[in-house]
Amino acid sequence: MEKPSLKETSFAMNMNSDHTRKTVCVFGTGDFGRSLGNKMFQCGYSVVFGSRNPELSGLHPKGIEVLSYTEAAQRSDLIIIAIHREHYNFLTELAEELQGKILVDISNNLKINQYSESNAEYLAELVPGAKIVKAFNTISAWALQSGALDASRQAFVCGDDKEAKQRVMDIGRSIGLTPMDQGSLKAAKEIENYPLQLFPMWKFPLYLSAALCVFYFVYCMLREVIYPYIQEEKDNTFFLAISIPNRIFPGLALNLLALVYLPGIIAAILQLYRGTKYSRFPNWLDHWMLCRKQLGLVALAFAFLHVMYTLVIPIRHYVRWKWSSRIINQIKNNKTDPFNTTTAWLSDSYVALGILGFFLFVLLGITSLPSVSNTVNWREFRFVQSKLGYLTLILCTAHTLVFGGKRFLSPSILRWYLPSIYVLSLIMPCTVLVLKFILVMPCFDQPLTRIRQGWERNSKVSKKAQLGNGKNEV
Amino acid sequence: MEKPSLKETSFAMNMNSDHTRKTVCVFGTGDFGRSLGNKMFQCGYSVVFGSRNPELSGLHPKGIEVLSYTEAAQRSDLIIIAIHREHYNFLTELAEELQGKILVDISNNLKINQYSESNAEYLAELVPGAKIVKAFNTISAWALQSGALDASRQAFVCGDDKEAKQRVMDIGRSIGLTPMDQGSLKAAKEIENYPLQLFPMWKFPLYLSAALCVFYFVYCMLREVIYPYIQEEKDNTFFLAISIPNRIFPGLALNLLALVYLPGIIAAILQLYRGTKYSRFPNWLDHWMLCRKQLGLVALAFAFLHVMYTLVIPIRHYVRWKWSSRIINQIKNNKTDPFNTTTAWLSDSYVALGILGFFLFVLLGITSLPSVSNTVNWREFRFVQSKLGYLTLILCTAHTLVFGGKRFLSPSILRWYLPSIYVLSLIMPCTVLVLKFILVMPCFDQPLTRIRQGWERNSKVSKKAQLGNGKNEV
Amino acid sequence: MEKPSLKETSFAMNMNSDHTRKTVCVFGTGDFGRSLGNKMFQCGYSVVFGSRNPELSGLHPKGIEVLSYTEAAQRSDLIIIAIHREHYNFLTELAEELQGKILVDISNNLKINQYSESNAEYLAELVPGAKIVKAFNTISAWALQSGALDASRQAFVCGDDKEAKQRVMDIGRSIGLTPMDQGSLKAAKEIENYPLQLFPMWKFPLYLSAALCVFYFVYCMLREVIYPYIQEEKDNTFFLAISIPNRIFPGLALNLLALVYLPGIIAAILQLYRGTKYSRFPNWLDHWMLCRKQLGLVALAFAFLHVMYTLVIPIRHYVRWKWSSRIINQIKNNKTDPFNTTTAWLSDSYVALGILGFFLFVLLGITSLPSVSNTVNWREFRFVQSKLGYLTLILCTAHTLVFGGKRFLSPSILRWYLPSIYVLSLIMPCTVLVLKFILVMPCFDQPLTRIRQGWERNSKVSKKAQLGNGKNEV
Repeated sequence: MEKPSLKETSFAMNMNSDHTRKTVCVFGTGDFGRSLGNKMFQCGYSVVFGSRNPELSGLHPKGIEVLSYTEAAQRSDLIIIAIHREHYNFLTELAEELQGKILVDISNNLKINQYSESNAEYLAELVPGAKIVKAFNTISAWALQSGALDASRQAFVCGDDKEAKQRVMDIGRSIGLTPMDQGSLKAAKEIENYPLQLFPMWKFPLYLSAALCVFYFVYCMLREVIYPYIQEEKDNTFFLAISIPNRIFPGLALNLLALVYLPGIIAAILQLYRGTKYSRFPNWLDHWMLCRKQLGLVALAFAFLHVMYTLVIPIRHYVRWKWSSRIINQIKNNKTDPFNTTTAWLSDSYVALGILGFFLFVLLGITSLPSVSNTVNWREFRFVQSKLGYLTLILCTAHTLVFGGKRFLSPSILRWYLPSIYVLSLIMPCTVLVLKFILVMPCFDQPLTRIRQGWERNSKVSKKAQLGNGKNEV
Repeated sequence: MEKPSLKETSFAMNMNSDHTRKTVCVFGTGDFGRSLGNKMFQCGYSVVFGSRNPELSGLHPKGIEVLSYTEAAQRSDLIIIAIHREHYNFLTELAEELQGKILVDISNNLKINQYSESNAEYLAELVPGAKIVKAFNTISAWALQSGALDASRQAFVCGDDKEAKQRVMDIGRSIGLTPMDQGSLKAAKEIENYPLQLFPMWKFPLYLSAALCVFYFVYCMLREVIYPYIQEEKDNTFFLAISIPNRIFPGLALNLLALVYLPGIIAAILQLYRGTKYSRFPNWLDHWMLCRKQLGLVALAFAFLHVMYTLVIPIRHYVRWKWSSRIINQIKNNKTDPFNTTTAWLSDSYVALGILGFFLFVLLGITSLPSVSNTVNWREFRFVQSKLGYLTLILCTAHTLVFGGKRFLSPSILRWYLPSIYVLSLIMPCTVLVLKFILVMPCFDQPLTRIRQGWERNSKVSKKAQLGNGKNEV
Repeated sequence: MEKPSLKETSFAMNMNSDHTRKTVCVFGTGDFGRSLGNKMFQCGYSVVFGSRNPELSGLHPKGIEVLSYTEAAQRSDLIIIAIHREHYNFLTELAEELQGKILVDISNNLKINQYSESNAEYLAELVPGAKIVKAFNTISAWALQSGALDASRQAFVCGDDKEAKQRVMDIGRSIGLTPMDQGSLKAAKEIENYPLQLFPMWKFPLYLSAALCVFYFVYCMLREVIYPYIQEEKDNTFFLAISIPNRIFPGLALNLLALVYLPGIIAAILQLYRGTKYSRFPNWLDHWMLCRKQLGLVALAFAFLHVMYTLVIPIRHYVRWKWSSRIINQIKNNKTDPFNTTTAWLSDSYVALGILGFFLFVLLGITSLPSVSNTVNWREFRFVQSKLGYLTLILCTAHTLVFGGKRFLSPSILRWYLPSIYVLSLIMPCTVLVLKFILVMPCFDQPLTRIRQGWERNSKVSKKAQLGNGKNEV
C-alpha cells in the first residue's frame, strides 16, 4: 500500500511542475470518449486513449495515441472510463496499474434506477485501490464537439477523495464547463439519474390540466355547439377555434391557481387536527406541495392564452359581423340602445380586475425564475408567493364573479340543466378562499402559528416550547 | 494551548478516515435545531443533540441521541448552536469542551441591527478558543423539513478559519444547499440582517410611485369625473375602472422612466461643476442612483398595465356604445365622416411609437434579470441600459407628444384651467431629454469624459493624468 | 531561489495570523487603481500605493500611504499592477523586490487581440520570479466607487499558482465580487478580450435581419404605397407607421425562425452524404449553428412586435373609419352582408394558430434564459428546443397559410406581378419543414442516428461501433 502512494505523490509533483503537458488517459474510443478526449487535447492536455483493439481505432487528431489499456494506464494518473458499465469487469485485471489512480466514471444508464447501486459505486467496488470520481455524464457529446454549451454548462462532480475531485473539476473548468461539487460518491446515483429525467416535477400538473381540459372541452361542446345544433340547427362549429378555448383556458387557469393554494390549506387543517407539525403528511400531499410552483406556471400559461384570445376578440370576423348587424338592426328598427351606466361599470370592472389579476400573476411568474428567486430571502419569497399569490387568486375570482354579473340569477343561462362553464370554475377558488378566510381568523391562526414554531399539543416538551417565540428555541 | 490542538488534529484525521459516520452535534432542540439535525441525519450524518433537559426532548427519529450539553459536545468537533443569542452565556461554562472546536452560529435576530455586534462575533468573544462559523440562518426550517428549496438554496457562510468554514460548507452541500463563502466573520452582521429585509431597494421607488399615483388620481378625478358631474351632470364614475387608470399609468411610467435618468444628469452636472469625480455625491443622490434599476422596473410595470388597459379598449361596453352611436348619428344625419389622412397618420404614429417604446422597455427589463445581466460585460450593459434606455425614453416621450397632437394648441382641453394629465406628464421627461441633449454637446461632453477618467480641474496631478487615456493610468 | 521562498512562507504565515490588517500594495494611482485601492481599504485591508512620483499623488483617504515602487513593494506580498501594459518594462528593475510575490494584472487593452500574447503572460515573462494572477479587468471603476454592481459581479480570475489565485479570489469576495476561477494563465487572453466585446454572437442575426428588413420594406412599399399611388392616385403613405411594419415583422419572424432550423438540416444532409460526423463542417455552417439561439430571439422580438401591431388594429383611426363606412354602405345599399361560416372558420383558425405559435415561441424564449436553461438537463433542453421549436415553426407556418386562405388562388392579389409579401415569406419555412419531414422518414433517420452515435460508413471501426448502442462505446 505504501509504494504506489509514494510513486503517485512524486508523479503528482511532476504533474504540477509541468502544467503545459498534463497527460490524461481515456479508456474507450466510443463517441463520448473521443469527444471528451479531443476537447481536452484542444485545451492543451496530452491525451492517450486505451482500447481493446488499438490498431482498429482510426480518425484521431495527430498527437493523440491509441494504446492498449495497460500501456495507456501507465501514462497517466487520471483515467477517464468511457466504457459501458456492462464491460467494467475487465478493469479488475488492471487493478495493479490502476492502484492509487483517479478513475473518472462518466457513464450513463438507459433507465432511471437501472441498477441497485450507481455505476460509480460499482466501479469503486471493482477497483478498490483507485480514487473514483463521478463526472461529465450530464454533458452531451454534441455539446463538446460543437462548443455550443447553450444548455447546461454545469458538470456535476462527486467523489470521496477531495484532491481527486479537485483535479477533475480543474479539467472540467479548463474545457469550458462549470463543475458543481455534489459531495461524496453517494451522490453518484442522483447524478446518474439526472440526465434521464424529462421534467419530473411537471408530470402531475400537466396530466392534471390535460384531464381538466378534456372535461371542460366536452362540457363546452355540449353547451355551445351540440345544444344549439340540436335545438336551433345552428352551425357553431367554428367556436372550436377561439370561443371554446377562451372558455376553457380561463377556467383552467383559475382552478389550477386555486389548486396551488389548496394543499397549504389542507396541510394547515391536518396540523391543527394533529396538534403537531412533526408527523409526516400523506405522500400525495407531500408531492402536491412540492409541485405547486409547476402548477402555478401551468396556470399562468393558460391565463396568458386567455388574455391573448380575449384581446383578439375585436378582429374576429364573427364578432365584427355580430357588432355590425346589431348596429344595422338598431337603424332598421329605428331605435337606439340607450347607454347603461351599470353595464358600463360591470364591463369595465371585470376587465380591470382581470388585467390586475394577470399583472400580479405575471409578477409571480417572474419571481419564480431561478435567478430572481435566488436573489430574494425567505421573508421576501413568502411575501410574494403567499401574500401576492392570494391577492392574485382573489382578483381572478372577482374577475370571474363580476363577469358573470347579473347572469348568475337568470335561469335562461341553463342549457340541458348545465350552467355556464364559469359557474363551475368558481367552485374551487371560492372554496379555497373561504377556507383561507376561516384559517386566518385568530382562533385558528394563533394555534397554527404556535404549531409551526414547534409547539405540540400532546407532548411533554410543549410547555417548554411555548416559552420560546422564535425558531431557535433552547 | 498545544494539547487541544494536537488532540483536535488527531480527531480530525479520524473524522476524515471515517467518511460515512461523521458526527455532528446540535445544541438546542427547538424547531430549527431539530429540522437541521433531522435533515443531516437523513443525509448520512450521525447526529447528537445537546439539551438542558435531555429527558424532556421527545419525538426524535431512532438513532438520534439527546444528551446533556457537556456529553453532546464531547461527541463531535463540530457543534451547531441552535440557541437564541440571549441564552449564549451558558456556553462560557463549557469553554473547555468547546476548545478548538467548530461552533456554527445559525441564529437570527428579530430586528435589523438589533445588537451592536453580530451574534456570531458575540459568540466568538464568549468562547475565544473555538472556531466560529456563521451559517444557515438564511434557510427556513420549513424548507429543510419539506425539501422544497424553491426560494433560495443559497446558504451564506462566513468565518475566520478556512478549514472550519470548508467543513460547514461541505455539510451544507450534502444537505442540498448551495453554500456561498462570504469571507471573514466580519460579514456575519450583514448575513444576520439579510433574512430580516423586505425588499429594501424597492421602498423608495414604491413610495414615490404611490405618492405620484395619488396626485395623478386626484387630478384625473377632478377633470374627468367631478367637472363633468358639476358642469354637465354626467355620471362618469365608471371611468374609475379603466379610463382613469389608463391616464394615470402611462403618466407614471413615463415620469418614473425619466426619474431613472435624471440622477445621472444631476451627477454629471455636479461633476462638471466640481471639476472632479472624487468628491462624494450627497447621500440622497447616491441612494437615488442605487435604486434606478428598481425605479425602471416599477415604470415597466405601469407601462405593462397601460398597454393592457389600452388593448382592451375595443371590448369595453362604453367604447362599443360610443362607436355604435357615432355610426348611427352619421346615418341619421345622412352625412359620412370623410377619411382624414392626417388623422390616420397621427393615430398610427402614436400607436407605433408606443409599441416600439414598450418593446425596448421590455428588452431593458429582460436584460435586468440577474441571470441575463450576469452574462453581459460592462460595455454591453452600458450600451443596453444607457443607449437603449435613452432611446426608450425618447420613443415614449414622442408617443405622448404625438398622442396630444393638435390638441395641445386648443384651449378647449382646459377644464377649470387644468390641462390634460398627459401635458403634465411631459414636463419631467422633456426636461431630462433637453438636459441630456445639452450634456452630449462636445463643449460639455469632453471635459466630462476627462473627469470620469480621473482628471481633476484643481489638482496637482491633473496635468499628469491627462497624459493617460485609459483607466489604468500610471 | 531558496531564500525568498522561505522568507515568503514566513511572511505568509504572518499574514494569516494577522487577519484584520492584511496589507495590499497597488502600483499606479490612476482611476482604476485608486478605485480598487479605496474599495479594499473600506473593506478592512491596509493599502499602500506605489507611484513614480509619490509626492504628486493627492486625494487619498487618510490611512493610505503613497510610496515609491520599491518601498511599496516591500510592504506586501501581493501587488496589484494598475499600470498600462506599455509601461510594464520598469518592473524588470524591481525583479528582486517582486521575487516570489503575487502580481495581479488588471490591465485591459483598447482592441481585441491587440498583442500576440496576453498582458498577463507578458508580465509573467518580464518578472519570471513572481506569481502572476489575472483578475478584476472585467470590473468597472465606476461600479467599485458607487457600489452599484448591477451588471456583472463576476470577476474572472486565472493564474498558474493555486494559492496565489486563492488569495486574489478572497480579496475579490471580500470587496463584494463573485470571483470565477477560469483556470491557468492561458485563459488570460480570453479574459482580456471579454470586456471589449459588444454582443459578438448577435452580429450575424442582427445584420441578417436588417438586410431582410430592408428588402421586405422596399417590396412592401412598391406593392402597398407606390402601386396604389401610380394606379389609383391614392395616398397610402400613412401605411408606413403600422400597416407595412405589420407585414414586414411577421415575415421576418417566420423566416428567421426557419433559419434557426435550416443549419441543423444542412448539417444532417452533410453527415448523411459524408457518412461520418467526425469531419468538420464548413466554417460558415459552424458559426451559423452557434448563433441559432440569437437568431431565434431576434425572431421572437419580431413576433412580439407583430402581435402588438395586430392587437392595436381595432383602435387605429383608419380601421375604425373603414369599418364604419362598410356598415354605412350596407345600410345605404339596403343589403346586409350575410354571415359566412367558412370565413368565420378561416378567420378564427389563423388567429388561433397565431396565438398558439406565439405562446410556444415565448416558451422557447423563456427556456433560453440562462437561469432556466441551467436547470434543465440535455434531454429536456433538446425536447424543448427541438420538438417544441419545430411545433412552433409548424404552427406559425400554418398561421400564415390559413391567413392567405383562398387568396392564394386569386390572380387579383398580384400587383406588378408581385405576390403579397406573406407568399414570399412562406418559401423558406415550407422548404425547411419539407426537408425535415424527409429526414425523419426511417430510411434517412436510421443511418443518421447511427452516424450521430459515432458510426462511420467508410471506416475500419464501423462494424465494431455498430455493436454499441449508447454513447460510451467500448
